[in-house]
Amino acid sequence: MYADADIPTEVQRALTNFLDIQAERLAEIGPELAEPVQAARDATAGGKRLRPSFCYWGFRAAGGDTGQPILTAAASLEMLHVSALVHDDVMDSSDVRRGAPAAHRRFEALQRARSANSGRGGDPVGFGVGAAILLGDLCLIWADEMLHTSGFDAAALARASKFFDAVRVEVTAGQYLDLVAQASGEADMDRALRVLRYKSATYTVERPLHIGAALAGADQLLIDALSTYGLPLGEAFQLRDDLLGVFGDPTVTGKPAGDDLREGKRTVLTAYAVEHASEVQLAEFDRLFGRRDLDDDEIQLLREILQDSRAVQACEDLITDKTEDALAALDRAPIEDENVRKALADLVVAATSRHL
Amino acid sequence: MYADADIPTEVQRALTNFLDIQAERLAEIGPELAEPVQAARDATAGGKRLRPSFCYWGFRAAGGDTGQPILTAAASLEMLHVSALVHDDVMDSSDVRRGAPAAHRRFEALQRARSANSGRGGDPVGFGVGAAILLGDLCLIWADEMLHTSGFDAAALARASKFFDAVRVEVTAGQYLDLVAQASGEADMDRALRVLRYKSATYTVERPLHIGAALAGADQLLIDALSTYGLPLGEAFQLRDDLLGVFGDPTVTGKPAGDDLREGKRTVLTAYAVEHASEVQLAEFDRLFGRRDLDDDEIQLLREILQDSRAVQACEDLITDKTEDALAALDRAPIEDENVRKALADLVVAATSRHL
Repeated sequence: MYADADIPTEVQRALTNFLDIQAERLAEIGPELAEPVQAARDATAGGKRLRPSFCYWGFRAAGGDTGQPILTAAASLEMLHVSALVHDDVMDSSDVRRGAPAAHRRFEALQRARSANSGRGGDPVGFGVGAAILLGDLCLIWADEMLHTSGFDAAALARASKFFDAVRVEVTAGQYLDLVAQASGEADMDRALRVLRYKSATYTVERPLHIGAALAGADQLLIDALSTYGLPLGEAFQLRDDLLGVFGDPTVTGKPAGDDLREGKRTVLTAYAVEHASEVQLAEFDRLFGRRDLDDDEIQLLREILQDSRAVQACEDLITDKTEDALAALDRAPIEDENVRKALADLVVAATSRHL
Repeated sequence: MYADADIPTEVQRALTNFLDIQAERLAEIGPELAEPVQAARDATAGGKRLRPSFCYWGFRAAGGDTGQPILTAAASLEMLHVSALVHDDVMDSSDVRRGAPAAHRRFEALQRARSANSGRGGDPVGFGVGAAILLGDLCLIWADEMLHTSGFDAAALARASKFFDAVRVEVTAGQYLDLVAQASGEADMDRALRVLRYKSATYTVERPLHIGAALAGADQLLIDALSTYGLPLGEAFQLRDDLLGVFGDPTVTGKPAGDDLREGKRTVLTAYAVEHASEVQLAEFDRLFGRRDLDDDEIQLLREILQDSRAVQACEDLITDKTEDALAALDRAPIEDENVRKALADLVVAATSRHL
């Protein structure tokens, strides 16, 4: 049994144990497989463990007892998250993740070194992209295996799999919407709100809560209450993340300053700005937004447009409203254990604070 | 209940029914999702349904009764296969699959048309790659969902999941080995044999048999017998596929003539040729192999090197040996039903014939 306070440590331990077993299995196929295993180890290290935390506390909210099965099941959501991040970085051509090279860049460097040694060999960029696609696939497969070998009985797993299927499809669908939004070159508030919901809110908060609760046998009343708490909280989390993607400190976000502006990320923040900017601002915005070679002055100019159009304030107001909605829902939720209530209230702060 | 003869038809029906349900679910997230659903419909149409057939007959070999659950479970392996093909085509930058544009090219064309209409929009190539990565992810998730919602009870699914986990990891690991082999720019017979085994033999024949047999509650004796039949057959299948990738008729393979030579695919066939070619042949081979712009004469030259080094004959001999091994193993296997024996013998021919 584990104290509730040790979740990030125990999640790390579960991931390490699982990858140790996978490393042995893959070593039988070939020594080359040590490379993706090490990449998976590095990619699953660190992070705030938000999704495992919501899963864990959903389980406890439904009366589940702490122990190895829920910690392993919770960790499976971190594995799922790493899969999404690895593929996302390929799709966005991002160079950096959590202050380290993105997976595809890491594999690219590996191949470059190998070619330099042997004096021959293929395109390192192509190798990097291919290897990262496979690493993301492995993590997606492993997330599933971690969940169904976590130690829960078949009935509990059957209850949870409905939500696990839902979240995997929702986040992939949300990513597709996001890709369409980026590619459209246009602001579309309706689509930005749907990306917010499916790429982030259900995936980061609501479904992890549901998976944990279902493993403990929650009734529909609690499942619904967790949605009423989790959906606005998940949206507030992503709105904060969008603000940090533009205004965040690189030493905190682990990404270069203004990265989302260079990538042309179509968020609620930018959709609001486009809706409310003056004609002159809009022309400037269109000229600069999504350009890979933005310099510091140009990033500053885009930030000012987001400020002056009141898009930043609108997002801050939304975060406040949604955070309050989540806390009010928590007050009304059928949860008896005061420790669980406190943990879920603390997670509201952790998920939406400015120093995320 | 279904007649055994209708497997491809019933697999198609199961895939269509499953995608109909997913289409409804995704329509709630947004009309944009109709695009990946249609791409999944097209990508799962056609094909020889080899993996579902082996799964089905593994089930019947273990005494399982035909019916909807095994047909849906068998179809889940086709969904898994489509996931691998879609990601493989991105990794290889292949333009064509089964005579139609590869998924990433299809999405690229979609985005190009959208940009032309709106007069703005992002990079169509990047959109194509990103959308195909997500489509492959969806199919990978859906394969799992199809299997565990196929109608089998939790005990049967738990038995099968061990093999389903194994095959998903093995094929991804095999793909990674293949990627390393391509990128190395060197022939390595040991690695080529491991790619043959993991990217193809276990994935196409052995594991589908195991999944079917485990769903019906097979004992270890039958599981082992199915390996003794399935592994050499799977290797023979891939050796035939490698020969067709170089010498096959484009109207039959659905791929341009000599496509594997342009991609620089490091197979047992090419590893043998490099080991046995003369110095002059080797220099020619190194100069041409893997060049994207090979013309018909150059392809013919590479083909002659593969012939003259006796690599083609060596592969044909291996196919004959392994096919005989598979048939001998089938003779010894503890399978009572003569219809099942006949079906498994027919599959040997179907998987290794020259007109695959």
